[in-house]
Amino acid sequence: MVRAQIVGATGYGGLGMTELLLRHPEITITSLLATQDTGKSISAVYPHLRGFCDLVVQAASPDSVGQDADLVIFATPDGVGQSYARKLLDAGIKVIDYSGDFRFRSAAEYARYARRHPSVQGKGHQAEDLLPESVYGVPELYREQIAGARLVGNPGCFAVAMMLGLAPAVRAGIIDPGSIICDGKTGISGAGKKPSATHHFPERNENVTPYRIANHQHEVEVTVTLEQLSGEDVHITFVPHLVPITRGIIVTSYAQLRSEVSQAQVQGLYEEMYQGEPFVRVMPAGVAPGLGAVLGSNLCDISLAVDEDNGRLVVAASIDNLLKGQAGVALQNINIMHGFPERLGLERVPIYP
Amino acid sequence: MVRAQIVGATGYGGLGMTELLLRHPEITITSLLATQDTGKSISAVYPHLRGFCDLVVQAASPDSVGQDADLVIFATPDGVGQSYARKLLDAGIKVIDYSGDFRFRSAAEYARYARRHPSVQGKGHQAEDLLPESVYGVPELYREQIAGARLVGNPGCFAVAMMLGLAPAVRAGIIDPGSIICDGKTGISGAGKKPSATHHFPERNENVTPYRIANHQHEVEVTVTLEQLSGEDVHITFVPHLVPITRGIIVTSYAQLRSEVSQAQVQGLYEEMYQGEPFVRVMPAGVAPGLGAVLGSNLCDISLAVDEDNGRLVVAASIDNLLKGQAGVALQNINIMHGFPERLGLERVPIYP
Amino acid sequence: MVRAQIVGATGYGGLGMTELLLRHPEITITSLLATQDTGKSISAVYPHLRGFCDLVVQAASPDSVGQDADLVIFATPDGVGQSYARKLLDAGIKVIDYSGDFRFRSAAEYARYARRHPSVQGKGHQAEDLLPESVYGVPELYREQIAGARLVGNPGCFAVAMMLGLAPAVRAGIIDPGSIICDGKTGISGAGKKPSATHHFPERNENVTPYRIANHQHEVEVTVTLEQLSGEDVHITFVPHLVPITRGIIVTSYAQLRSEVSQAQVQGLYEEMYQGEPFVRVMPAGVAPGLGAVLGSNLCDISLAVDEDNGRLVVAASIDNLLKGQAGVALQNINIMHGFPERLGLERVPIYP
Amino acid sequence: MVRAQIVGATGYGGLGMTELLLRHPEITITSLLATQDTGKSISAVYPHLRGFCDLVVQAASPDSVGQDADLVIFATPDGVGQSYARKLLDAGIKVIDYSGDFRFRSAAEYARYARRHPSVQGKGHQAEDLLPESVYGVPELYREQIAGARLVGNPGCFAVAMMLGLAPAVRAGIIDPGSIICDGKTGISGAGKKPSATHHFPERNENVTPYRIANHQHEVEVTVTLEQLSGEDVHITFVPHLVPITRGIIVTSYAQLRSEVSQAQVQGLYEEMYQGEPFVRVMPAGVAPGLGAVLGSNLCDISLAVDEDNGRLVVAASIDNLLKGQAGVALQNINIMHGFPERLGLERVPIYP
Repeated sequence: MVRAQIVGATGYGGLGMTELLLRHPEITITSLLATQDTGKSISAVYPHLRGFCDLVVQAASPDSVGQDADLVIFATPDGVGQSYARKLLDAGIKVIDYSGDFRFRSAAEYARYARRHPSVQGKGHQAEDLLPESVYGVPELYREQIAGARLVGNPGCFAVAMMLGLAPAVRAGIIDPGSIICDGKTGISGAGKKPSATHHFPERNENVTPYRIANHQHEVEVTVTLEQLSGEDVHITFVPHLVPITRGIIVTSYAQLRSEVSQAQVQGLYEEMYQGEPFVRVMPAGVAPGLGAVLGSNLCDISLAVDEDNGRLVVAASIDNLLKGQAGVALQNINIMHGFPERLGLERVPIYP
Repeated sequence: MVRAQIVGATGYGGLGMTELLLRHPEITITSLLATQDTGKSISAVYPHLRGFCDLVVQAASPDSVGQDADLVIFATPDGVGQSYARKLLDAGIKVIDYSGDFRFRSAAEYARYARRHPSVQGKGHQAEDLLPESVYGVPELYREQIAGARLVGNPGCFAVAMMLGLAPAVRAGIIDPGSIICDGKTGISGAGKKPSATHHFPERNENVTPYRIANHQHEVEVTVTLEQLSGEDVHITFVPHLVPITRGIIVTSYAQLRSEVSQAQVQGLYEEMYQGEPFVRVMPAGVAPGLGAVLGSNLCDISLAVDEDNGRLVVAASIDNLLKGQAGVALQNINIMHGFPERLGLERVPIYP
Repeated sequence: MVRAQIVGATGYGGLGMTELLLRHPEITITSLLATQDTGKSISAVYPHLRGFCDLVVQAASPDSVGQDADLVIFATPDGVGQSYARKLLDAGIKVIDYSGDFRFRSAAEYARYARRHPSVQGKGHQAEDLLPESVYGVPELYREQIAGARLVGNPGCFAVAMMLGLAPAVRAGIIDPGSIICDGKTGISGAGKKPSATHHFPERNENVTPYRIANHQHEVEVTVTLEQLSGEDVHITFVPHLVPITRGIIVTSYAQLRSEVSQAQVQGLYEEMYQGEPFVRVMPAGVAPGLGAVLGSNLCDISLAVDEDNGRLVVAASIDNLLKGQAGVALQNINIMHGFPERLGLERVPIYP
Repeated sequence: MVRAQIVGATGYGGLGMTELLLRHPEITITSLLATQDTGKSISAVYPHLRGFCDLVVQAASPDSVGQDADLVIFATPDGVGQSYARKLLDAGIKVIDYSGDFRFRSAAEYARYARRHPSVQGKGHQAEDLLPESVYGVPELYREQIAGARLVGNPGCFAVAMMLGLAPAVRAGIIDPGSIICDGKTGISGAGKKPSATHHFPERNENVTPYRIANHQHEVEVTVTLEQLSGEDVHITFVPHLVPITRGIIVTSYAQLRSEVSQAQVQGLYEEMYQGEPFVRVMPAGVAPGLGAVLGSNLCDISLAVDEDNGRLVVAASIDNLLKGQAGVALQNINIMHGFPERLGLERVPIYP
């Protein structure tokens, strides 16, 4: 039984992992750490957990982080995981981090991200030497590396939808990677648990708002990844929008086709790449159910359309931002890191309606 | 392995049962029957099921109902189950019915309900002789009878929240059963899958609307049940309200206390009655998390408050209307009928947020 | 032209008044005061006002409050208006206050309210001597007194719906005033503009939550008022619920009828009392459109039902909490105080859908 | 006083016009026609109108259409207006039509639209000879022609947001008109009043769904218009998405800049074109309030961003789909047609929150 510790347990990201691990047959939660609500039962913070998990939240500190754990999950903002990772790895503890701390293999790539992210503000990395060994946790692209990793950087929620939606087309070279537009729509849980003027109910309800226009940090990790896949320069204009739902992301991506490609050819390309993938579903031509079809699951649904008049490809990719975009993909990565069946604890059918 | 057939598989109630049985280790779905969308895969009707269940929906008919099944689940409107039940029971097939067809033990009680229900309009029962043997499927009240039953009438969604919220107080005699007010709030999925002017998105969004004021059929089964519990006349004014959410019911009940009773005494009474119940949680005094804390689960949460100034008891009871209010309690009943552990296939932690 | 100053201009209550006065032909806004966002244009705080009102928000202070104004509107929390009122009245300036500061005619009544209100916490009133002259701003009950008033206490949002829904029945003595239950449902804008954990979008969306069960301060002003109307003791159990909409309140009230009264008689009673009222609509029997039918207007809609089986009256009263529950009724009061036509600036048809 | 008749009065489009005309000082509604709910008062269909408008809905027929009217507003599906227009014009009656019937100046352009629109299915126009004289009702582009027109084709809701967002950049030639992507998000009221499986509350709530991908009919009128403006071929890939709100459209448009253009230059270009426009607001750089800032008004808000890294322009344009996207722009056109001040009856400040 793997002993797991969740750092940042009182946020939505930590909560998602708690909910998943409560049903995992090979992993047990030994402690929940946080900087707020310490000393309270987690079920006092989240009453829905009453009777399922009543562990007391402990203060995260150099003493408590890593204690009695084989695996530490950092469901924390940027900068926390990188301050603890070296010590944990040296103690033989596996680490997965939700933030941007370990999504990049070099200080240069990280710097590009750090400049873009408002909460990092260009600050340098505290554990640069670990970057080459860290693995970017996108199973569909880096499964083998994850299998051997001690340190995994979980991808950004928008990045998951963007990458899974674009990877087959970019890899096959059918689209011009310099022509990509990604229009994202996200539920408000993506902003986390902390209240703010922007995410106050009356401000968000009956509203749709673009933000960080062409300036969101998740674009960086997608560009870096697609450049690796294609060997070409990638140019993405990404505009996220807040929509008044709790969970879910759908990213609609647009790119210029390099030559005439039929709908059937595109379908074939995507189906081939994702054949056997446990959590990616390529919808048949003409079927675009919206993000409602993946909520409550670790799935990514992909709908494809060729705009013949304009020679463009349109891809809509949907995920539950708190599962395939956060805790779900993290558990998928953890399963791979430990050699468990990849679906373990993630078998849930989406909830509908 | 129990072979289950779902009749009415394309509605939300049948869908809920399908989602649950896909993960049940002792029951397998052998066929999905309906009167609409027959000939299509269920995953063409509900794309979120793609890859989980792709059975073709078959036409419900005297030939197909009961075929290759040990258990038939009628997720159908009033009147369907009663037309098939005798034949199925005679063939040794167990039956559970979501409608009001088998919630009453006598033709007289059924008639009271039938007069109230707009879709029944006072019509007589087609299988009156089965009523005495049918069991009303509220496990917290009739567990033993359900265990021996071949024919169970699943309770109405509002009725579950009303009864679980009121039963301990009524049984103990601390409230005047002639003074009960139940104010219900329900998500729109309770109206089913069929579109209508009333449940069109723009009509329901940003709206709260009372309906069937003091005239809803679910009141009848609650009154009958509480009269059995108390041996006294029960008078309930029940007003349901549509609120713009998809899932969830919360019923706030009010009643006159017969004598001075403290908050602690009421808490004790409820905790005692529901001790050991797998799906009822009595919240501590002062905690009322709202219906969000049970969504995606088979739980019923109960919050209690004594209004000392006015000598009244206030009880808020929350359920997921599609689970504890429909498919979830149905599976709980099925588990009891078959001697399976009561939680089997129903272990889900609520999803939050 | 009446020169109006709004104190608390950056909250939703001040905003509502700003939106209304921009179209008022007899009143002009001379200044907007607040304690936050001072120095900014109000249209930088609320972009929807751009081009309609670009006044700079000034700091509220003893110097600025009342400056260049014939009328000061306190859209502020409890305690602010009472600290300024004496000075303003002495300077010949009319005052209307949104908080509980001037809803009561005596220190004793105020104390009852102050004990109940969490943000007042039982503190004494700073201008007790003004209470006897202040008028409670419910035009349907106190129109004549408002017409002669210099100082008006605007009613609480829930209180408006509760009082208008109950007043005719209480005044006529057809219900037992000791048996009243009020179940309220409110949009989240009622909690104001300040973000909080409770009103964070993901916590409120897809949720319905009771709060301050049998302990909300608005109950006090209703009880006091209905006791004046009836000359009897009034007992109200009031439970408000948060529902995931932005605007709107519906209160469903229940009371025991004293004798057999028909639906037609109750309709007649209500229609008679509200005949000629510019902002109260008594719906015909059987019509209960929900709160959606009043949004964007100063209307209060009332639907009536007699529960014959149980001898009870059910009343549903709907308002837009930011208009008839706050800025709208305030402007109605201001119009009456100044002898303007009561509908001036309030003619808006509700917006639907 | 202009005597106006509304055909299609029971749909959301007709309703919007009714709400607006009730407050218009120069226009009076003489009759409401429809094919459904005839014989009922409009306030029985829409209870929020009770006391504001209680006209009885009459059956639309060759006899009733045009009767006692100086102006007929067709708030009807495609095909209705074209069957009546000739007769009405001959009788000296002005006509405005919400559908695509009169948005095009030639049969060839209309055919392009007709092929795309599922409800027209390529059928020919019944009054082709009127097309050259009809005017496309976009005041910001065709104000002079509208002023002299007897017959105006009101634009599509998405088309308004797309055109106003793109026109300045296309006219100035700063973007490549062959590179345009429009990603639209619309509230559900855009689908009209008729219930359908797609727009059933539980299907739309907590969901975001693309539809008619690169195949929506509104794209045609935008392309035709922008080609007129630019004299170049225009290629637009337009993907609309349903988002769970009632009102509002935001279209985020993306295009390749032809040369290096600064944010300030783009701002200047847009501010210049829309200077003096009563209903277009160009937001300052960095301000993108979302569609919430225009709801309840006839405004179109435009936010601009230059994506310097990728040499692209991003424009977000927001409208209330039922006002600036339908009844509001129709009234603006009607005002222009009659020489009334353009803002008459349209002065409403947006409602927020």
